[in-house]
Amino acid sequence: MKKVSNAYEELKPFLERAQAFSTARILFEWDNETLAPRAAEPNTTKVVGTLSGEYFSVITDEKVKELVRRCRQEKESLGEVESAVVRELAEEIERLECIPPEEYREFAELTAGSTGIWARAKENNDFESFAPVLKKIVEYSRKFASYRAKEGQRLYDVMLSDYEKGFDIETLDRFFGTLKERLVPFLKKLTESGVEIDDSFLTGDYKEEDQEAVGRFFAEYVGFDFDRGVMAVSAHPFTTNLHNKDVRITTSYNNRVDDSLFSVIHESGHGIYEMGIPDELTQTLVGQGASMGMHESQSRFFENIIGRNEAFWIPVYDRLQKQFPGELGDVSAEQFVKAINKVQPSLIRTQADELTYSLHVMIRYEIEKMLIEEGLKVEKLPEIWADKYEEYLGVRPRNVSEGVLQDIHWSQGSFGYFPSYALGSAFGAQLYYFMKGKMDFEGLLKKGDIKTIREFLRENIHRYGKLETSRQILKRVTGEDFDPGYYTDYLTEKYGKLYGIKAE
Amino acid sequence: MKKVSNAYEELKPFLERAQAFSTARILFEWDNETLAPRAAEPNTTKVVGTLSGEYFSVITDEKVKELVRRCRQEKESLGEVESAVVRELAEEIERLECIPPEEYREFAELTAGSTGIWARAKENNDFESFAPVLKKIVEYSRKFASYRAKEGQRLYDVMLSDYEKGFDIETLDRFFGTLKERLVPFLKKLTESGVEIDDSFLTGDYKEEDQEAVGRFFAEYVGFDFDRGVMAVSAHPFTTNLHNKDVRITTSYNNRVDDSLFSVIHESGHGIYEMGIPDELTQTLVGQGASMGMHESQSRFFENIIGRNEAFWIPVYDRLQKQFPGELGDVSAEQFVKAINKVQPSLIRTQADELTYSLHVMIRYEIEKMLIEEGLKVEKLPEIWADKYEEYLGVRPRNVSEGVLQDIHWSQGSFGYFPSYALGSAFGAQLYYFMKGKMDFEGLLKKGDIKTIREFLRENIHRYGKLETSRQILKRVTGEDFDPGYYTDYLTEKYGKLYGIKAE
Repeated sequence: MKKVSNAYEELKPFLERAQAFSTARILFEWDNETLAPRAAEPNTTKVVGTLSGEYFSVITDEKVKELVRRCRQEKESLGEVESAVVRELAEEIERLECIPPEEYREFAELTAGSTGIWARAKENNDFESFAPVLKKIVEYSRKFASYRAKEGQRLYDVMLSDYEKGFDIETLDRFFGTLKERLVPFLKKLTESGVEIDDSFLTGDYKEEDQEAVGRFFAEYVGFDFDRGVMAVSAHPFTTNLHNKDVRITTSYNNRVDDSLFSVIHESGHGIYEMGIPDELTQTLVGQGASMGMHESQSRFFENIIGRNEAFWIPVYDRLQKQFPGELGDVSAEQFVKAINKVQPSLIRTQADELTYSLHVMIRYEIEKMLIEEGLKVEKLPEIWADKYEEYLGVRPRNVSEGVLQDIHWSQGSFGYFPSYALGSAFGAQLYYFMKGKMDFEGLLKKGDIKTIREFLRENIHRYGKLETSRQILKRVTGEDFDPGYYTDYLTEKYGKLYGIKAE
Repeated sequence: MKKVSNAYEELKPFLERAQAFSTARILFEWDNETLAPRAAEPNTTKVVGTLSGEYFSVITDEKVKELVRRCRQEKESLGEVESAVVRELAEEIERLECIPPEEYREFAELTAGSTGIWARAKENNDFESFAPVLKKIVEYSRKFASYRAKEGQRLYDVMLSDYEKGFDIETLDRFFGTLKERLVPFLKKLTESGVEIDDSFLTGDYKEEDQEAVGRFFAEYVGFDFDRGVMAVSAHPFTTNLHNKDVRITTSYNNRVDDSLFSVIHESGHGIYEMGIPDELTQTLVGQGASMGMHESQSRFFENIIGRNEAFWIPVYDRLQKQFPGELGDVSAEQFVKAINKVQPSLIRTQADELTYSLHVMIRYEIEKMLIEEGLKVEKLPEIWADKYEEYLGVRPRNVSEGVLQDIHWSQGSFGYFPSYALGSAFGAQLYYFMKGKMDFEGLLKKGDIKTIREFLRENIHRYGKLETSRQILKRVTGEDFDPGYYTDYLTEKYGKLYGIKAE
């Protein structure tokens, strides 16, 4: 048996404390988004600020740094998991250490409160009430990135690497360039094809309690385990987890049935990833999904590649009809599948169809680059946002609620996060083509056998947690480096068939 | 202006950290009782254990102890709040310090998990699955009390003083003795009076969503502020608070409408107390109610003295009828008020009528004394429990779910808590008689003016937080020391009138 590193053993109680603080912070965030009373914010924000400060203190403790150094000297006595934990810890120290504790704490307090301000601004269609907070968040984010930037490294690159190692402005300019080149003309052809899909029946008197019932059914159907998870309501759907046996998803309800339905399947994808983290990894620094992009690859895989697949609906469409006999009783499965795949350039990212989705992301990517790298003023955001929507998607928001205020991310200080949505879709398409070579993918869906597909993902991706990067995972699973061509192939193939058109 | 104590200023960051840890722990407890998925417990328990350990470490830090000593030397520079905080801190240090940190942590982990085990045992009517855990909890509780017991002090006295300073076995033997002497013969007379009250209409097809709607209405009607609070569902109703702007109550629903209705009014009373804590006290060691007994005095004041008062229902009975036209449409306000005050010796404390309630508490008091002081074996509990119910109330539980497993308290290690329920009722009665001399109490209720009553309580009790003990508060407000005679007077007067009988 290997001798266990003494330094690592000494490190454990520190890691345990850091984990407890961050788990508590996650619970406060969840609670704040789903349940906490309106007036609670100022007091609770202080508590969360203190917990963040404690996390900071533990991670950057001199003793911890010394132990990390010793662990690296005792490398041969560390197992795979321990090595990865030490690597993540070293990176976390680097990320945090250059930030003065007081600033770190101020920022945590700022972002704990800012989400509420954003939510109210969105509700009231009032950008001005959010702008001063956003300005501060941008300032802090730039400042923090500047502390960490290597010689000559751009600030936005620092932010991007937080969410997706190995991807920077250069790579992403190329990635989005490819999409623009292949998808924009394809989209033009498609919208000019004259093909009209009727999706009017997706809007209607869909009762919230019925939507919740089908949401729960489909979450369970794709594999979300309600013994280890819960589902609640929040302004913007999200997934969070305390550990692999406490995974939480939210949704929100309106009169369009597919909004909540596919948001639930999407968040279930995130949730299933976290439930697939093994016990020996959970509550460690490598006990989460590999990256934001890999996480999105799973959520969008469940939402689109599985959930919007014609084959998926064959065994279960009647379940949906049964819940909504008035609305869907006369709608065939074929009509339904067409409707949920209707391409329609629109304003809201989370409601966008699969094809135009990445253009929404591209807009955010371009704006973030301008905000962080090119000194774009926060006040200009509503206009720039509207202009870009008009340019790429041919639609212009009538107000900020359906424009620049639609996403929660910036209110949380998450710059550099958005690109991972598009990357995730691209990762998913690459995995899909590989899996099709290994199993009768659509045949499994037709039989209602989601388990085989889910188990493949668990076995090959989920159980690795953060032991590997997204790129390493793709390489190991598919035998190839990341190749965005699969994504454009997938989209033009699927939507070409649906709309009877050919890609260039 | 007074010079602020330097030592106190130095103490503040420690207090802030301790407060953050305990607030986080409270949120985990709330979450565990209301929402957390079933399988989450083992992992979450570890996190909570770590947070408890951190709380312990901060409070018993050598630097903190030194600062407390210095604060006491700089006494004249401390304001009233600061002095009280230092006093509470010194007591907390004393309470914790004699417990080895490892044992404290083990106990916190044990009780974090034990509530779930209790809930399942109750559900499955299976005392054996809970007994080993309870045995450990008793052992820890006795051990911890023994660390803190002064020369010759009994262990149960140590526990009692945690919840109610100035009350010990001797005082409580006398208190319960008085109740037994005056209430038992009165109850006998009453049950032999032959007066039959019909309360059959309180049981029926009361839909959960309708019960929730009236619960929310009456919570708000008595003064629970939903901008600063939330209401949820749990196995056993309780109130918790993160601070004065985040106060949370729960209830549970069955087919008896008064169970949830009066549990909501009861918990609202607790909640209103916590909402009445001023900003300068919240999130400090004196930012809670004065004691468990004083807390219960408020909850039971709202539940019984206000909520079961004939005058209370005059302006609002039609609101209840409107929600339940089928069940209450033909029931007059007079019939309803009689029914909610029906005396009926029964098995479940939380469903007990106002008159027999304190006998339920007395049974728990006697059993706790036996468990802690007289070496009663945990295995014997179901039988002892059943025997005492038969002896004092004339009813015998058919199983442990409606017997010894009905209360959550022991699963949380709360021994010495129960007596405060009876004390609280007695405090409330003393306050009631005093208030009747100051205001037209029933007249206010008839006009729907709960505010004047609530403001009196806020102004005279709530806003003091933990600055004074329950006994000091009673003395200041009523001009008299605690006198249980008011309680027996109140009960025999009210129920004598209702049943047409005279007390001895």
